[in-house]
Amino acid sequence: MARTDKMHLGAFMMIPGHHVASWRYEDSNARGVLDYGFYRQVAKTAERGKFDMVFLADGYAVHERFPLALEQTVQVRLEPLTLLSALAADTENIGLAATVSTTYNEPFHVARKFASLDYISGGRSAWNVVTSNTEAEARNFSREKHLLHELRYERAEEFVDVVKQLWDSWEDDALVANKEEAKFADRTKIHRTDHEGKWFSVQGPLNVARPPQGHPVIIQAGASEPGKELAARTAEVIFTAWQTLEEAQTFYSDVKGRLSRYGRRPSDLKIMPGVFPIIGRTEEEAQEKKARFEELIPVEAGVALLSGLISFDLSPYPVDGPLPELPELEQINGGKSRFQLLKSLADREGLSIRKLYQHIAGARGHREILGTPESISDQLQEWFENGAADGFNIMPPYLPGGLEDFVDLVVPELQRRGLFRTKYEGNTLRDNLGLTRPINGYTFKPAESEATTG
Amino acid sequence: MARTDKMHLGAFMMIPGHHVASWRYEDSNARGVLDYGFYRQVAKTAERGKFDMVFLADGYAVHERFPLALEQTVQVRLEPLTLLSALAADTENIGLAATVSTTYNEPFHVARKFASLDYISGGRSAWNVVTSNTEAEARNFSREKHLLHELRYERAEEFVDVVKQLWDSWEDDALVANKEEAKFADRTKIHRTDHEGKWFSVQGPLNVARPPQGHPVIIQAGASEPGKELAARTAEVIFTAWQTLEEAQTFYSDVKGRLSRYGRRPSDLKIMPGVFPIIGRTEEEAQEKKARFEELIPVEAGVALLSGLISFDLSPYPVDGPLPELPELEQINGGKSRFQLLKSLADREGLSIRKLYQHIAGARGHREILGTPESISDQLQEWFENGAADGFNIMPPYLPGGLEDFVDLVVPELQRRGLFRTKYEGNTLRDNLGLTRPINGYTFKPAESEATTG
Repeated sequence: MARTDKMHLGAFMMIPGHHVASWRYEDSNARGVLDYGFYRQVAKTAERGKFDMVFLADGYAVHERFPLALEQTVQVRLEPLTLLSALAADTENIGLAATVSTTYNEPFHVARKFASLDYISGGRSAWNVVTSNTEAEARNFSREKHLLHELRYERAEEFVDVVKQLWDSWEDDALVANKEEAKFADRTKIHRTDHEGKWFSVQGPLNVARPPQGHPVIIQAGASEPGKELAARTAEVIFTAWQTLEEAQTFYSDVKGRLSRYGRRPSDLKIMPGVFPIIGRTEEEAQEKKARFEELIPVEAGVALLSGLISFDLSPYPVDGPLPELPELEQINGGKSRFQLLKSLADREGLSIRKLYQHIAGARGHREILGTPESISDQLQEWFENGAADGFNIMPPYLPGGLEDFVDLVVPELQRRGLFRTKYEGNTLRDNLGLTRPINGYTFKPAESEATTG
Repeated sequence: MARTDKMHLGAFMMIPGHHVASWRYEDSNARGVLDYGFYRQVAKTAERGKFDMVFLADGYAVHERFPLALEQTVQVRLEPLTLLSALAADTENIGLAATVSTTYNEPFHVARKFASLDYISGGRSAWNVVTSNTEAEARNFSREKHLLHELRYERAEEFVDVVKQLWDSWEDDALVANKEEAKFADRTKIHRTDHEGKWFSVQGPLNVARPPQGHPVIIQAGASEPGKELAARTAEVIFTAWQTLEEAQTFYSDVKGRLSRYGRRPSDLKIMPGVFPIIGRTEEEAQEKKARFEELIPVEAGVALLSGLISFDLSPYPVDGPLPELPELEQINGGKSRFQLLKSLADREGLSIRKLYQHIAGARGHREILGTPESISDQLQEWFENGAADGFNIMPPYLPGGLEDFVDLVVPELQRRGLFRTKYEGNTLRDNLGLTRPINGYTFKPAESEATTG
């Protein structure tokens, strides 16, 4: 079943790699995590490979539930928006996606920063909307407890709505800059948001004019019920974590099916599951790399990672024993979909704690694909052509080598098969993702518009 | 009275110029305000002129008290931290100073963003600490009223303390990246802040290691009593607004005199008053430029600017009449020092509202200096050599020309006189300002240190 559209690719810039032991790998740049030149090198590599975007995850705390996590894993990172702005100056075409939490930020700041990044990059910014999931983050923001899952999503819905209103608060042609008539802006085209909601009151207008893309691209990752609903209503890209084709297909048709409720078409939302590729020139080389990574995981780091992913402390349990009795899904106030995925994986395959953390230390719940460039391409093509994905978020095990291999070996194979672009389609991230530029709500519904002042 | 040290210079990047009518001036780039390439051009010009830093003011609302302000003045701007990060990639030596308010932000985010900018720029970041001063900003952040002046400063004190603790939460050598020993970081050198105060509780540690400069440079601008005290305790650069040598000298010795209370030396704080230069190749050319700018001010924009500066609505009063009876200083919940300065200026010189706004439409309360490059240099030299300033924050009337003139005509004259550097002294902003790198509190007082975990 051939598709006429092309696959979309994101490069996950987790430095120095997506594998928890990546920093110990012989070819990885362990100190690159705070070295801007290293990020630039990675971003330029992704741009050379014609990736749609680079993507930065984020969090607002170190993981310190387990003493050795702080010692054995990489717990520092640059802040995504400052970093992506610098990369905007050093790249030309690639999209720039930053994770920002709606739980610990304010809509006005977030609207403004992404609008600024959109101007600085000439229309290449994207916001990955998350709601955060650790208690440690709450304690860095004067709160004792992390907000409950349902409330986080309620807040997120309102937050995204306000941000979009702020982006629309200046119509596209509101800036006039007419020196003769002393008219810098047309105030009939500038609108207050006057939002009064449960979580926020925001008067507006924004103090940045409408961004080049209209709205920066909205990305989401939640796969819980409220996460899917929020995505169907507001997201333009979804990053998800699925292990099997069937799971991915079910999710794909579920979410695409929800779009019509909000007046949206299936092509308005691109579903891009995460993929952790271990690439070898031969199958054996790929297997050796995988084994080497598993050796490099310190036990405590592995247990800490797994505990974090399921929001349950596994450190008191024997590492070669089975998973203990876990709480019910309803009691988990973290990443619910990740919890479910790992619990069912352990049950299905009877894995010990060690085997389970080795299994997830690279892909962290995402799909691991291993093999030669041809085999990697086959595995991507299968999902792309069978209703499971519109593209993939590539999570190289280590950097820069893991991404260089993908760009130099896999991308040409995908291009040969006609699955991936050989040049960028346009100048903005929306152009390259094949997403339309949103119409301004005020232009669209003139009856509702009202000047800020006058 | 010759000084052995050199003058420091900041370039105020108000786009398209510091004069309120700059965007109407024939040679200004009116649309430059959202054009990254224009900021890059200005920053590179300042770097060519060996300026210590570029400086970005900021605010979180449009001014909309007066209907025409939105139409006749420039009310949009890019967000400073995203913008400066891009400029970090496009410059080599110049310092990058961003204004961020303590009233509408969180210490964890601010500490992290400036630390990131410091890494990205290789030690060139600076934070201008302000407390905001308009009701419109409050209404963009779910608050009905702007916080009172005293409370803003109380919050600011605590905010800055927490940010500095977060910058110190990783000792300078905490990052080890030892692959063999599986030791990425030395956790005995990573510290929680465990701050519990009136305004904030912040557990820490930060998720960025200690910045290259130790602490990004701290700048302040407040000249009220709590502003001066906050500056004496925490600031390393002060931007101030003074019209006369005597006022500037009084302030200079007052603030420098307060430093010893906090164990600081006079050289630990650089005082850099704002200066608005109108440069001509002849005195007449400078006078003509000034007259041209005054012609270009729309009446409503002039009245709105003046009203904003004194936090009092002047629009109901005849523009060619005197200032009305103004409230007492105690009742003003805005920039108190600016209010006082303008009120006494109007009283002293008997200016009408129109004359007063023409007078301040360029310098906005800062010192206006006008003349040939020699005369401009004389005026800077006088303050620098007579205990009134360690340098100046240059506010070009229009851009890029106003800065190009300063760099091409005034800087060479200052260099000839031995008053200004001919090359950068070092790689970081601290090096160039002649500020020492702060010792980490934990290294300094080992008895107080305590590992985060373990």
